[in-house]
Amino acid sequence: MKRIFTFCLVLFSAVMTLSAQQTIHHRSSTFSPELLADGRVAFRLNAPNAQSVELTGDMLPEQEITTEHGTWKRAGVVALERKEDGVWEYISEPLPSSYYNYNFILDGVRITDPANVYTVRDIASTFSLLIVPGGKGDMFSVQDVPHGTVSRVWYEVCDKQHKARRMSVYTPAGYAEGKEHYPVLYLLHGMGGDEEAWLGLGRAAQIFDNMIAQGRMTPTIVVMPNGNMAQEAAPGESHEGLIHPEAMLPRTMDGSYEEQFIDIVNYVDNNYRTIADADHRAVAGLSMGGFHSLHIAQYYPGVFGYVGLFSAAVFRGDATKSEVYRDSDKRLKELFEAQPKLFWIGIGKEDFLYKENVDLREKLDKLGYPYIYHESEGGHIWRNWRDYLVLFGEQIFK
Amino acid sequence: MKRIFTFCLVLFSAVMTLSAQQTIHHRSSTFSPELLADGRVAFRLNAPNAQSVELTGDMLPEQEITTEHGTWKRAGVVALERKEDGVWEYISEPLPSSYYNYNFILDGVRITDPANVYTVRDIASTFSLLIVPGGKGDMFSVQDVPHGTVSRVWYEVCDKQHKARRMSVYTPAGYAEGKEHYPVLYLLHGMGGDEEAWLGLGRAAQIFDNMIAQGRMTPTIVVMPNGNMAQEAAPGESHEGLIHPEAMLPRTMDGSYEEQFIDIVNYVDNNYRTIADADHRAVAGLSMGGFHSLHIAQYYPGVFGYVGLFSAAVFRGDATKSEVYRDSDKRLKELFEAQPKLFWIGIGKEDFLYKENVDLREKLDKLGYPYIYHESEGGHIWRNWRDYLVLFGEQIFK
Repeated sequence: MKRIFTFCLVLFSAVMTLSAQQTIHHRSSTFSPELLADGRVAFRLNAPNAQSVELTGDMLPEQEITTEHGTWKRAGVVALERKEDGVWEYISEPLPSSYYNYNFILDGVRITDPANVYTVRDIASTFSLLIVPGGKGDMFSVQDVPHGTVSRVWYEVCDKQHKARRMSVYTPAGYAEGKEHYPVLYLLHGMGGDEEAWLGLGRAAQIFDNMIAQGRMTPTIVVMPNGNMAQEAAPGESHEGLIHPEAMLPRTMDGSYEEQFIDIVNYVDNNYRTIADADHRAVAGLSMGGFHSLHIAQYYPGVFGYVGLFSAAVFRGDATKSEVYRDSDKRLKELFEAQPKLFWIGIGKEDFLYKENVDLREKLDKLGYPYIYHESEGGHIWRNWRDYLVLFGEQIFK
Repeated sequence: MKRIFTFCLVLFSAVMTLSAQQTIHHRSSTFSPELLADGRVAFRLNAPNAQSVELTGDMLPEQEITTEHGTWKRAGVVALERKEDGVWEYISEPLPSSYYNYNFILDGVRITDPANVYTVRDIASTFSLLIVPGGKGDMFSVQDVPHGTVSRVWYEVCDKQHKARRMSVYTPAGYAEGKEHYPVLYLLHGMGGDEEAWLGLGRAAQIFDNMIAQGRMTPTIVVMPNGNMAQEAAPGESHEGLIHPEAMLPRTMDGSYEEQFIDIVNYVDNNYRTIADADHRAVAGLSMGGFHSLHIAQYYPGVFGYVGLFSAAVFRGDATKSEVYRDSDKRLKELFEAQPKLFWIGIGKEDFLYKENVDLREKLDKLGYPYIYHESEGGHIWRNWRDYLVLFGEQIFK
């Protein structure tokens, strides 16, 4: 028994050391972030030679900064204090249960926390992740409940640029073992995002697992495609290599995504046990994904019985670019003539797209088209989109 | 047209800025790593206030260091040079096509490259990833070939600690659309790894896609379970939260994984279109995963027709801990009496487990049990395990 234990230690040490052959430093032995008993959180970085270490993240109060380009709000920044052993530390105020992202700024360079292995990518930035449990954060945490399956699936496309494109698919717990058919939610990301966005920053798989387990949401297949038609897959997952986000701008709002969206729906209906009718099909998205959701729902009236616009860019598409954006009022009329069961709008009071959503509501009111409206605090941020997904998820397929 | 383009720019800028609300710094606009035309690679970090920036990674020659604890090999370290604009730069020698991991060391702290969004986790360390194309690296890159589906699947377990555990499953291109049945490879990680290890550092999905497309491998379902019985899932994916790797040591080599392994096989046979016989079932693993593979194949003789030991810890398990490790010679005999189609051993000349593998071969030779042996350069490193997977993959299910 001692022998095997010693062997384990030797093997483990060897793995750690030999893994370090390919780099140099072992992982940090500093514990960070640490949830203290009183609800405060200690953030620590082992950096004896640093000149300055700061923390920035959405657990800190926002700061207003004024530059020659104008006044902006940004996440707060606080200095860590250097301890005698070379470990820098900042202890927060007690943090409410929630999902937080943060970075350290080490001598002016924004880095992730080397002691926290869990990171999440937002467009081309990487953050360290912290979930404070015991309240709202629990919805975004993995809980001891049945879990759905998350798959990265390549579907064939008829596209001048690609043979296949990648999407993420969530199938609810029990799908693999059962024979049942399920409704489908198509969940669309914003500009700069991709098929990973709702799973990473959006915590979509955790939200669905938890809501379904609590009986607050109908077990649903959720399809998260990549809305950048210039991309076949997320950075690093494409044969085109690492594409700089700016390279994606073309072909995100030129109508081509909306035009081919029915191919995605057909692929899903052909390859998953779906209930293939409007009453069991929803489309929702954030920001640009809200724009896409609106235009997809308009372009295919009667196909989606539930539509969700989360902080949507409801600016009309360019009618010279695609028929998708032509006759938009007529298409909106057709959408509502098909009597969708839910048309849901969520927006934050400080969102830069707030005014556009006021205009949209005025138009819907004038035309007598029914919708549900949710107004939240805050701006164009993931914290809102996670909340909207919970609110929208409760209202679909009931 | 101009209007929509301007809107796109505004929306994109807003997303970048508002995303930055949650942090402070925009992503770096520095281009790194850059593959230069002559095969050299430029590594760059924008750090005007840094005192020193170094690069470490497996593209640099190893260095020997001697400390009071002994002499070790480690990845080389080179200094970057500070340019006038505050960007630090190192330009490598021309690099052969391969897969490389690297980090910067910024004022003594090991960080990932902020300009390279693609990172990979090894146990509790995170690296930036670089693939130099045009040769061997192409096998580990996403190519323009049909892609399999990668799923994270939770399977129910009878376990005192967990209700379900997580595994990664690769189904080959065409699986979802077809009706065919497939052979299954069970692919096991090493100590400190988890169900993400073969997909991340192992580039398993890319290797299978490429080998299948080249006709070098039979289309196969690949199951990558989590071999740490104390864990239900990889860090961040478990309801137990972020578990420090040391916490996983118990229950990795106590027989419990091997004992319940047949439950995984049954789950897969019940829920996937497998060919459920020994001629269409392989088990292989690296390091501790090689230990597991050997003991699983011994404990269930006649169940696995192909066995692969990659730099395996072939040390015998502790017989006082589990019947799995009892009567090991008898079990080995039973394994070979079932006439597996392939028993494959791969090890590097510098591997710290080399001697154990010599002993194993001597034993097999003495007993007249057939096996294939592959000896490579180098030690206990992922570069070897990716190569072994290619070599093993070519020989199974033919």
